[in-house]
Amino acid sequence: MAFTYCHTIHFKDTDAAGVVYFANVLSICHEAYEASLAATGFDLRQFFGKGDVAVPISHAEVDFRKPLRCGDVITVYLTTQTLDIERFSTHYQVFDPKNRVAAIARIDHICINARDRRRCPLPQALQDWLHIHGAAAPSPVADGG
Amino acid sequence: MAFTYCHTIHFKDTDAAGVVYFANVLSICHEAYEASLAATGFDLRQFFGKGDVAVPISHAEVDFRKPLRCGDVITVYLTTQTLDIERFSTHYQVFDPKNRVAAIARIDHICINARDRRRCPLPQALQDWLHIHGAAAPSPVADGG
Amino acid sequence: MAFTYCHTIHFKDTDAAGVVYFANVLSICHEAYEASLAATGFDLRQFFGKGDVAVPISHAEVDFRKPLRCGDVITVYLTTQTLDIERFSTHYQVFDPKNRVAAIARIDHICINARDRRRCPLPQALQDWLHIHGAAAPSPVADGG
Amino acid sequence: MAFTYCHTIHFKDTDAAGVVYFANVLSICHEAYEASLAATGFDLRQFFGKGDVAVPISHAEVDFRKPLRCGDVITVYLTTQTLDIERFSTHYQVFDPKNRVAAIARIDHICINARDRRRCPLPQALQDWLHIHGAAAPSPVADGG
Repeated sequence: MAFTYCHTIHFKDTDAAGVVYFANVLSICHEAYEASLAATGFDLRQFFGKGDVAVPISHAEVDFRKPLRCGDVITVYLTTQTLDIERFSTHYQVFDPKNRVAAIARIDHICINARDRRRCPLPQALQDWLHIHGAAAPSPVADGG
Repeated sequence: MAFTYCHTIHFKDTDAAGVVYFANVLSICHEAYEASLAATGFDLRQFFGKGDVAVPISHAEVDFRKPLRCGDVITVYLTTQTLDIERFSTHYQVFDPKNRVAAIARIDHICINARDRRRCPLPQALQDWLHIHGAAAPSPVADGG
Repeated sequence: MAFTYCHTIHFKDTDAAGVVYFANVLSICHEAYEASLAATGFDLRQFFGKGDVAVPISHAEVDFRKPLRCGDVITVYLTTQTLDIERFSTHYQVFDPKNRVAAIARIDHICINARDRRRCPLPQALQDWLHIHGAAAPSPVADGG
Repeated sequence: MAFTYCHTIHFKDTDAAGVVYFANVLSICHEAYEASLAATGFDLRQFFGKGDVAVPISHAEVDFRKPLRCGDVITVYLTTQTLDIERFSTHYQVFDPKNRVAAIARIDHICINARDRRRCPLPQALQDWLHIHGAAAPSPVADGG
């Protein structure tokens, strides 16, 4: 259900402290997102270019647990969560070469009409992709008490 | 009390959607953090290099409200918050050229001994910097009930 | 005649060797190019966006003389050179905080119609900008023998 | 003899013109260099960290032939050239998804003692790596003839 993405830490990803620059961890998560879309048949050039519909990021957050260094082969697990008809979250678990959690991230997207930038419903293809990688939804009963 | 940082959006900051790549907003906030440290007298080369004490980022989050484009002159307001003797938060408000809030971010740091990566108290110079840019602290009475 | 651009090296510009990542020196030169265009009245958002005419880069080269580190305040001198009716070069001298040459770069641009990507003559506004920052042209007599 | 590296263009690699930001092409070439070193057994974390010997870049240049876009799967062919006992060049041919040459680059490295930054001979392991990926050297007779 989760999409698995492998990435080798490049020299460019690092900073003078010798580890991956913090914001680059989010970029690597976004690479996993791109790879999962491509694997489902999306044309990335069009999707991230100038299509009629866009899904810009409304929120991003990340917790850092372990530093990552040049040459580290890391694994990113991506799961998705539909928030409502116009919004979804992507969740990322980043594992270091010793299989320890190095980072946990979440990136929220909102669907808009690219022309007027007003909200619009998620296209069917994205709904399908969300379905494939959707984490088991929390039970509404458990939430609602 | 807030530190003010001006930045012009570079072509490199943008992506194929024509706006600033999401993770670069956090990088611009970090630039404001660096500028505020330099303004207080910190030697950035040493601080971000291989000193005895380091303050890596433990958490980052950002909300996106307005897209930013190449050439936009933006203003970042930075305030700080001491969390405990070893940790602090930095808060950022990013304004677009029309003085609308384009993004709001928070970045948490934790102080460690660079050799063994164990937590240690914040050095006095950082405590002073935190004091200068500290937002009005929430009343402990209100918190403690 | 040269355009002068000041830049502070950010933590993000550096890599695990503790100095500026090589390709970022070219990015900083491009920032100087953007700043010089803005100073002459160009609307960067349109110029680097989706205008009718574009001036993509056909060639770039850079020599590295001195390493640059986080916090270094550097100065970039930009001069221009018209190659022919469709092409121009930009030349960059990058000075470190001790006023030593840290890098020398050259970036060539070619003017194209954005729709069919075929070469076209440089717009008047760019010709004017080239004139302002043009280095003293080598004597045609000397060249032609 | 050439080392082959595959890379998918990420959204982060692109700029507001919809194509890969020029300096990122050099970064992708450097990724190929890192991958070829790792494939030969180098420990990248040490090699690009704080070892006794470093091989910083003294020169880089790149010609751009075709634009690259998000999602493009490109191939980079890397060959090496020993210049003298302290210096080597790496050469890159970048092919777009239609197998057309999109860019040609060259990056020169110089071997230094990391402590005093003075030139020193290339370590044996690097000489071996240079030998594996060395392009057929141009005949000195043909050159001198």
